[in-house]
Amino acid sequence: MNEQLPVLKQGHMGVDSGIISFIGTEIPAEWNDASIEVKDGSNRVYLPGLVNTHGHAAMSLLRGYSDDVSLQVWLEEKMWPIENAWGAEDIKWGTLLSIMEMIRGGTTTFVDMYSFMEEVAAVVDSSGMRGCLARGVIGLCPPDIQTAKLDEATAFAKAWHGKANGRITTMMSPHAPYTCPPDYIERIVAASKELNLPIHIHLSETAREVQGHINQYGKRPVAHLNELGVFDRPTLVAHAVHVTQEEIELFAAKGVHVSHNPGSNLKLASGIAPVPAMLKAGVRVSLGTDSSASNNNLDLFEEMRLAALLHKGVSGDPTAVPATAALRMGTIEGAKSIWIEDIGCLQPGMKADFIALDANQAHFQPQSDWISHIVYSANANDVTDVWVDGKQLMSNRVLLTVDEERIRFEANRLLRKFSTGA
Amino acid sequence: MNEQLPVLKQGHMGVDSGIISFIGTEIPAEWNDASIEVKDGSNRVYLPGLVNTHGHAAMSLLRGYSDDVSLQVWLEEKMWPIENAWGAEDIKWGTLLSIMEMIRGGTTTFVDMYSFMEEVAAVVDSSGMRGCLARGVIGLCPPDIQTAKLDEATAFAKAWHGKANGRITTMMSPHAPYTCPPDYIERIVAASKELNLPIHIHLSETAREVQGHINQYGKRPVAHLNELGVFDRPTLVAHAVHVTQEEIELFAAKGVHVSHNPGSNLKLASGIAPVPAMLKAGVRVSLGTDSSASNNNLDLFEEMRLAALLHKGVSGDPTAVPATAALRMGTIEGAKSIWIEDIGCLQPGMKADFIALDANQAHFQPQSDWISHIVYSANANDVTDVWVDGKQLMSNRVLLTVDEERIRFEANRLLRKFSTGA
Repeated sequence: MNEQLPVLKQGHMGVDSGIISFIGTEIPAEWNDASIEVKDGSNRVYLPGLVNTHGHAAMSLLRGYSDDVSLQVWLEEKMWPIENAWGAEDIKWGTLLSIMEMIRGGTTTFVDMYSFMEEVAAVVDSSGMRGCLARGVIGLCPPDIQTAKLDEATAFAKAWHGKANGRITTMMSPHAPYTCPPDYIERIVAASKELNLPIHIHLSETAREVQGHINQYGKRPVAHLNELGVFDRPTLVAHAVHVTQEEIELFAAKGVHVSHNPGSNLKLASGIAPVPAMLKAGVRVSLGTDSSASNNNLDLFEEMRLAALLHKGVSGDPTAVPATAALRMGTIEGAKSIWIEDIGCLQPGMKADFIALDANQAHFQPQSDWISHIVYSANANDVTDVWVDGKQLMSNRVLLTVDEERIRFEANRLLRKFSTGA
Repeated sequence: MNEQLPVLKQGHMGVDSGIISFIGTEIPAEWNDASIEVKDGSNRVYLPGLVNTHGHAAMSLLRGYSDDVSLQVWLEEKMWPIENAWGAEDIKWGTLLSIMEMIRGGTTTFVDMYSFMEEVAAVVDSSGMRGCLARGVIGLCPPDIQTAKLDEATAFAKAWHGKANGRITTMMSPHAPYTCPPDYIERIVAASKELNLPIHIHLSETAREVQGHINQYGKRPVAHLNELGVFDRPTLVAHAVHVTQEEIELFAAKGVHVSHNPGSNLKLASGIAPVPAMLKAGVRVSLGTDSSASNNNLDLFEEMRLAALLHKGVSGDPTAVPATAALRMGTIEGAKSIWIEDIGCLQPGMKADFIALDANQAHFQPQSDWISHIVYSANANDVTDVWVDGKQLMSNRVLLTVDEERIRFEANRLLRKFSTGA
């Protein structure tokens, strides 16, 4: 996953105490030790675990519940009325459903912005995944409720940052410029500074949102957030579909990271983010699925492929976002986007977050170019094995840390509950 | 697959001599017969087999061989030099590789435009798939070679139409307006009339091709083909990316069918076909993968999803190409696009071409809306079982009519042969 993305055709990888200790073609002499556990990797392709940098895991309960409508209708008329009635139980099972899907699809780290985050953190911990979590706050409410939400977000961020052997990190998350009044955003920025934590926020997802912001504040959302000091903090913005060249240059200058969510942006008809211009300006771009209520899956191979295909088709330039760039966006750039430096590539000294694909799949034949095959041909179901922190979470398509049958049962039970009241 | 796309939540389907004989919630009394073979469909979702209306199956040998370049460079510098050296053996194993991938991904019928079509027909026959096949002819050659190619195409079309219990049909196929001189196209039109067979042709795939045509002939490719009488024959055109509203209306008036190839068009940076305008004008639109050398897989679920997502994102209209329309394009519209009226939907009297998906997949939970889940969440590997003409081709992910290990071996051997000369 360095600039050249070298592919080792055949070799061996050693993991010691959750850290990659060796990668090479010859087996080191000291491995001649009966205490070493050996895994056969024949007919497998190993790569770093995928990193999903934007989502709302619990919303998987709403998969297929509302399609083919605009973001505002979808959010305000379909999603919020149900979500507002949800409690800890819904969040627990919804998040577990997403975790089950993500592990099955080779995602080892995910960003989650939602509520009831104690529930989310608990299942990230027990599932063995890596999560960068934030209590997303919406400030369209009376001051006392604003304060209660901010206190909750702060307490959560403080309590869980660095927990689960470092697998959980936290962020502060004002939901969006259009759902948080300016003074509330300033208070969140101050909290992020005090806790020394980054900020995660939705930004310029739709043209309507940008225009609404201009109408309300007389300025575009990017300028607004910049004036409020958001970009003086380490910040990951989601979407950035409707941004100007000037705004892209501001992102580059301020080190703002962008989570590109091509599938969700298409589905909600929000548009297509100017990713080639961002990459050219030196902006760090990673990939997010957004929730499976607007995607409608959490397959990061599909997002890598969309990132590689979409910008070619739109720009007319077949070299826009080559396969190598898309693979980096789904792995090492994802890790760096959430300020984690020791995952996202397979190299001695890095944490052992990695996955295996079944190299025998028909769509991987002939085995000409693995980078191409991973980006342009693979899908979530090609993943056979998953490790995080050196611990195996899936073995030959069997999940080892979550109870799939129970999660399926609870997800369908909760769907019946909120859709029929039964 | 009729207008309402009704979903039967639980039920029974009977197949007799390759024809669907019954679909309903209650088991018919006459099924109480020990001679009837019963298959348990618990935790499976059944739908019509998918129909892939444009491709070049043998080119799967070139998957991953050349990415991130433009159509013209890809075709003229990368593909043609290798393809020109190919013989019957390459076509046989390349086509079998595609057949193996298509069956695994739930495609039961495919269109193939290529050369060495006797080889293609033979493996379609033996594999049990349904194929609509055409010897694609390029006329940029001396008259005697033109004639030889046309004779070959005619002989093939005549010999194989209706063969393999009707599973094989044929078409006449001038490769494209830019690769066939006008008089050659007229001769092919005459042959198609004489044989009473339809025409399949690439059309207006890139802006450069359209401009080149204007430079050479003083008119756009659509007007050119119309004047040559192509559209007076039943015609399926592939791509139609760069077409005007007037041209779309001509397609509707003349009953020209369009094979939309969103993945390939994006990857080669050709652009995005105006599908919503085509559907509005009443043009029959189906889906093709094109070859896996420019896709790079033959996953028709992905093409359905791209068709549903892409046009929303580009138009800003979240109701553009809803899930139901995309599913129809991948099934019944595909069948009608190649003039087959008795496949593409599950209904008594139709041929028994159908597939099953694993309903337990994480990305299908909760089981809220199957049409949505099939279009927005599914992938090729979700397919567990495949039947064509009532005969099972895949059972619980095991292929029954082709030798997978041998195909993998031969595909990789042939890759080594043409890429290294070894």
